Amino acid sequence: MKAVKEKIQALRDRMKDEKVEGCIVPSTDPHISEYPPKHWKTREWISGFTGSAGTVVVTLEKAGLWTDSRYFLQAENQLKGSGIELFKMDLPETPNISDWLASELSPGDSVGIEGSVFAASEALSLIGNFSKKGIKVRTDFAPYSQLWEDRPALPNHPAFILPECFSGKSCREKIKEVTEVLKKNNADKTILVGLDMIAWLFNIRGNDVTYNPVCLSYAVVSEKETVLFIRPEKLTEETAAYLREQGVVFADYEKINDYIRKIPAETRLLITPAKINYGLYATISENCAKVEVAIHPVDILKSTKNETEIAGIHNAMQKDGVAMVRFLMDLEKALASGEKVSEMTIAEKLLHYRSEQAFCAGESFGTIAGYGPHGAIVHYEATPESNVELFPEGILLVDSGAQYFDGTTDLTRTIALGPVSDEMKKDYTLVLKGHIALATACFPKETIGMQLDILARQFLWKNGTNYLHGTGHGVGYFLNVHEGPQNIRLNYNPATLELGMVTSNEPGLYRSGKYGIRIENLTLVVPYQTTEFGDFYAFETLTLCPIDLKLIDFSLMNQFEIDWLTDYHQKVYERLSPFLSEEEKNWVKNHI
Amino acid sequence: MKAVKEKIQALRDRMKDEKVEGCIVPSTDPHISEYPPKHWKTREWISGFTGSAGTVVVTLEKAGLWTDSRYFLQAENQLKGSGIELFKMDLPETPNISDWLASELSPGDSVGIEGSVFAASEALSLIGNFSKKGIKVRTDFAPYSQLWEDRPALPNHPAFILPECFSGKSCREKIKEVTEVLKKNNADKTILVGLDMIAWLFNIRGNDVTYNPVCLSYAVVSEKETVLFIRPEKLTEETAAYLREQGVVFADYEKINDYIRKIPAETRLLITPAKINYGLYATISENCAKVEVAIHPVDILKSTKNETEIAGIHNAMQKDGVAMVRFLMDLEKALASGEKVSEMTIAEKLLHYRSEQAFCAGESFGTIAGYGPHGAIVHYEATPESNVELFPEGILLVDSGAQYFDGTTDLTRTIALGPVSDEMKKDYTLVLKGHIALATACFPKETIGMQLDILARQFLWKNGTNYLHGTGHGVGYFLNVHEGPQNIRLNYNPATLELGMVTSNEPGLYRSGKYGIRIENLTLVVPYQTTEFGDFYAFETLTLCPIDLKLIDFSLMNQFEIDWLTDYHQKVYERLSPFLSEEEKNWVKNHI
Repeated sequence: MKAVKEKIQALRDRMKDEKVEGCIVPSTDPHISEYPPKHWKTREWISGFTGSAGTVVVTLEKAGLWTDSRYFLQAENQLKGSGIELFKMDLPETPNISDWLASELSPGDSVGIEGSVFAASEALSLIGNFSKKGIKVRTDFAPYSQLWEDRPALPNHPAFILPECFSGKSCREKIKEVTEVLKKNNADKTILVGLDMIAWLFNIRGNDVTYNPVCLSYAVVSEKETVLFIRPEKLTEETAAYLREQGVVFADYEKINDYIRKIPAETRLLITPAKINYGLYATISENCAKVEVAIHPVDILKSTKNETEIAGIHNAMQKDGVAMVRFLMDLEKALASGEKVSEMTIAEKLLHYRSEQAFCAGESFGTIAGYGPHGAIVHYEATPESNVELFPEGILLVDSGAQYFDGTTDLTRTIALGPVSDEMKKDYTLVLKGHIALATACFPKETIGMQLDILARQFLWKNGTNYLHGTGHGVGYFLNVHEGPQNIRLNYNPATLELGMVTSNEPGLYRSGKYGIRIENLTLVVPYQTTEFGDFYAFETLTLCPIDLKLIDFSLMNQFEIDWLTDYHQKVYERLSPFLSEEEKNWVKNHI
Repeated sequence: MKAVKEKIQALRDRMKDEKVEGCIVPSTDPHISEYPPKHWKTREWISGFTGSAGTVVVTLEKAGLWTDSRYFLQAENQLKGSGIELFKMDLPETPNISDWLASELSPGDSVGIEGSVFAASEALSLIGNFSKKGIKVRTDFAPYSQLWEDRPALPNHPAFILPECFSGKSCREKIKEVTEVLKKNNADKTILVGLDMIAWLFNIRGNDVTYNPVCLSYAVVSEKETVLFIRPEKLTEETAAYLREQGVVFADYEKINDYIRKIPAETRLLITPAKINYGLYATISENCAKVEVAIHPVDILKSTKNETEIAGIHNAMQKDGVAMVRFLMDLEKALASGEKVSEMTIAEKLLHYRSEQAFCAGESFGTIAGYGPHGAIVHYEATPESNVELFPEGILLVDSGAQYFDGTTDLTRTIALGPVSDEMKKDYTLVLKGHIALATACFPKETIGMQLDILARQFLWKNGTNYLHGTGHGVGYFLNVHEGPQNIRLNYNPATLELGMVTSNEPGLYRSGKYGIRIENLTLVVPYQTTEFGDFYAFETLTLCPIDLKLIDFSLMNQFEIDWLTDYHQKVYERLSPFLSEEEKNWVKNHI
């Protein structure tokens, strides 16, 4: 790991030159992406830690990496010999970054950050926290391009149009919806930075980020004009023609700062500080009024799917279900016949069956196939080093999904490959009971995910168990497999569950060193009933794939739960069977 | 209602004199009390509206009262002919006060408030909102003493000491706990304004507010000195001697502003902006550092009851249970014998039986006894005008509680006085199922009430019904029947449920014009289990009183719920029977 040490030394030299005593290197990019293009994986480059979430902090003497429990093991391995200390987030004894850095620095010192890769909310909070301690924050400290010799270029794949037969609404209609919300919020203009928000609004997709079909761009929307900031070479003639016809004006990707600087005084700009980078935020003239909202209205419009999208998602679920059935049958046969199957071949098999389906555009994230103890590593992805062979015993956890032009899928099944223990069955059944309780929830309009979360956890909690990840995340439409604003978590998030939102339902349980269990379906918020007490909503389960019966302890299930499972499996069979061979149909019948 | 019109005219004259174009009159007092002494019931005085929650807003042309759904009917009646318009809060079409007032005023205008009766958080938010619209907020507009001719004086009852055999901890020990928390928060001093926080800390009680055994005072706590600001005539020799011995210094109640103004520069003052009035907040020198915390640590210390307090609460519950059994038996006999019983006699009977119990210090709030349609008015209190006679049919809702030196009680029972409909039984059973689900919840440390709330509502929601009040509030120890920081509600509140906290469990259902149902017990947070997944807590139900079986549709209950009810009634019988006569014991046996 000499390379990392050298990089950090080079960074420290630059820190000394620029009189910066501490610096923070985050995981994100100017678009506040969860998964940034390689160009912006600065934290990965400097530390060698490849997990999706983590922040490196460097002082002239010390260096640390903060990451969450999903990555404790991986970070420990990857940081070996780097001189970077691992700080395990969420543990009571772990200091937060601001406190730790403040304790290492002295009043009068400076912390350097690259403002453009921090959310404005994040940067403002750092500035506030450090100023209390007499420490300055310099937001223009960005020596990485010079230090990072083989830094990957910005991705430059062409954008393509998602036809209206898939998107259900023209770009012009969507722009109109956005300008109407701006008016309601007493705002003139808004700046879009999130790549999925832009992809949704303009009906464009791209290949600039692995698994996320987005393309590098910014946008500014107002009643007068809607500008898409994108490199000209990314626009094919066809794409440009469609967008022009929809009333969109183009500007180069790099011109966004100039444009924002020149926004006329008195303009009321709608901003979500967590969804704009600090660089752009700081560029906004003081003569403009910032209308700050906690949730960007484009995120709400994007996540409340229209009828065409909902019909598409139903199709995508049927296709994904067929692929899953073929995969599960193939796996079962392979194990029975003694064929060598490993964690890594799972991903290959899945992609093979999915690719046979119409409009498949690849995986929606790296397949997680964890056998035995690997299942307990929540974000496990098999590598040639970790890969293990499967045997007809114990538990396999498979979390995977695909991108189709008519929808994004994400499901997890936990499968008994052979004999399983009573403890496994009990854990699995309690997870399943929670999954069913959430799937059958009814709730009034205005409910947020945090209020429902306990439904999925209640049986585990009664058994003194728990899982530390969220219960549900929003899912895009041929877009990011993780999208906002809504989610279902232990933590507070003010986003309400609205009709048409797609959210995962994925309780789990992880016995470290033993096995992992997770059962994940996607759900759609649908109307339930309207009474004198108001409007009530419910979930429709979208995912179509058998749930393994061999892992269930039926003595722990009540009749309501058993009926739900029977009905669900009946629906799976009815929806998938027209697309299955006789052998496949029989396999499903024997497994439900 | 000429009087109200005249008062508002007089207020408008003063507004004109002082060049104030709008003013806001809230319900609270300098101690941010939910129930203030009469001296501060300015909003009630100016509007004639006697509900506990409501805000009057007056401009030179218009006047409005904002109140919540509990009080819509009452406010409508009490405002008749006053010229004050009723604004129904929580309805989507109702503007909030800031927006409405801003729309009535013009840039350059001023809004007047009496800063000392607004929480600092409230006043700061008003100032921020109005400044965006070019409207000034004057926080020294307080003409009420001059306008309010017969304004009641400040209450001046003596304070008394709650002996350590009841409080469980000396004042000195509590001060030490507070100064330790101050140190942890890197603060030197804190200002206490909440009367219940002060009563807890100093082991004092009083009679300055109806139902709340508190006495008017402020306090400042630091490691160096702890000052109690209280009128000297309220201190008996005995009280003064105890407090002096505990290291407490006295100052006059009125001297608090002077003291705060003189706090030395550089002092780090721990403040909860929602728990200090704006008058005091604004008095703090700019040279002091404000350590702002969302929840005041004294509120947490107060609400996590110690062992003596918990033992006391168990006693109080037993005494209250005995009183309730005698009351229920009396009521049943009275109705059977044809004796005239009205809603108003319920409160008398309850107080009679409670007063027979040891250490009873009266009611903890005004008894709510609502027969038939009156039960659907959530905060109904019978008056000579509204009072109705009870008959052996339909439903009676009784929500009441008492103050004992060893605990505060609060329970609600809904009773069938005779034949009841199937709809009543279904509603009651769904409320009961929710009550049981919450009573039997298990949850990890760090859980907040909002996460548990759905347990109590889930069965109602599946039936398209709901209740709009909270599911649970904190309860003091021989203190306010409503106390923070924790609660169990639809709304977000970051306060976690800690061991030793007492919280109500009170789902309900209200059919307007027909009947109201509520089942309320108090609960205590107790350890459940500790596993590799962390510490888990559960609730112990504290209240001891039969739940009416005649209202239950047992076909809707599962075995777990029936077992809970049987076990609960068994506990009620075992705990109460040693204190009951043979006849009373038989009555209980026949009702469980």
